[in-house]
Amino acid sequence: MQQDFERDARRQSGVSPVVVARLPRYYRCLRELLGRDVLRVSSAELARLMKTTASQIRQDLNLFGGFGQQGYGYNVKNLYTSISDILGINDNYGAVIIGAGALGSVLASHSVFAKRGVILRGVFDDSPDLIGSMCAGFKVADLAQLELFCESAVIDIAVIAVTDDSGAKLARHAIDSGVKGIWNFSPTDLLCSSEVTVQNVYIDDTLMKLCYEMKQTDDKKI
Amino acid sequence: MQQDFERDARRQSGVSPVVVARLPRYYRCLRELLGRDVLRVSSAELARLMKTTASQIRQDLNLFGGFGQQGYGYNVKNLYTSISDILGINDNYGAVIIGAGALGSVLASHSVFAKRGVILRGVFDDSPDLIGSMCAGFKVADLAQLELFCESAVIDIAVIAVTDDSGAKLARHAIDSGVKGIWNFSPTDLLCSSEVTVQNVYIDDTLMKLCYEMKQTDDKKI
Repeated sequence: MQQDFERDARRQSGVSPVVVARLPRYYRCLRELLGRDVLRVSSAELARLMKTTASQIRQDLNLFGGFGQQGYGYNVKNLYTSISDILGINDNYGAVIIGAGALGSVLASHSVFAKRGVILRGVFDDSPDLIGSMCAGFKVADLAQLELFCESAVIDIAVIAVTDDSGAKLARHAIDSGVKGIWNFSPTDLLCSSEVTVQNVYIDDTLMKLCYEMKQTDDKKI
Repeated sequence: MQQDFERDARRQSGVSPVVVARLPRYYRCLRELLGRDVLRVSSAELARLMKTTASQIRQDLNLFGGFGQQGYGYNVKNLYTSISDILGINDNYGAVIIGAGALGSVLASHSVFAKRGVILRGVFDDSPDLIGSMCAGFKVADLAQLELFCESAVIDIAVIAVTDDSGAKLARHAIDSGVKGIWNFSPTDLLCSSEVTVQNVYIDDTLMKLCYEMKQTDDKKI
């Protein structure tokens, strides 16, 4: 997942994927500083928060236009806005959630959309039991209506919120309906054209990695 | 997250982190083959499923003891079992979920634990509204009882199932209670000693990466 992202990032922007991978953390740090009404931050302080060196901070941020001033530090608000722009957070992408089950409900009420500037516009499902029910303030729509919905509203992202193997079929449906980005929570490897951007959240893989690392630690102790 | 994992994997096992990162995908492919009652698989067929080359498959698997036979291919069951062992899937780690809200409910009923050989033993929360209620078949226990619970049952992993900033405090509580692995769904950077293994699922970051990549694709079109 990370490797695909890094390869794509390198191809698309020319910026080192290692730097790109750090941007969400910069964003989180700066958001936290803004929340504490911090107006300026030195590269040394930002380095402490990011658990890296001041020199790396300066190098990273120079790549994106050098927002700092010698002896003054970084303007937190400006840096936050600039990184938000780079990350596409202020583009107000529209999204729909496909899957109104337990995972869909968690995501529909998750603060991540509002925090990341993505506008959630609807929740869809193909189960007659769920269509018409309420899901975190949304009336669950019939999946058969997705294409029509995407014609009348700007929908950029489909969130595939199922934990079974139906993910590939649902993603195909969403792409056929015109979305350009898939945020995939299903445990399926999606095959999409290069026109479509996919970000997978392979929950299963992260648990496997945790067990693997714990096993390595255990083995060292024996 | 991936970089931390790769660095740790390299330090701990000496095996290339790029190979380690592919293991969960091998595991998933082999599980699918087993589900289709496939007994043997050639490196060419496995390469097709893994979207890589047969030569890379042979190189990867040689690192873990070379399970293939010339002209015969790989015994799917044996390879699956071996990779499960390497990943620590058959170690039957015990886990508790901390946070019995919507995310905790999704995780408590998620097939990932059974599929990955992790035994879920309890769900904890500190909210009086939730303590005593049912969560996917578990009676939600008082978080104040966690340490006592960990003394009487083998609990290796704590799943931090909150979406707010309380993750660090909850992880600290779990570590003080004796768990050695944290599967963290909260948007918090956890600071833990090297004795504790952490795997973060930063949902927010993956949405940011998706928006970033979509923006790159959009910018190319202009």
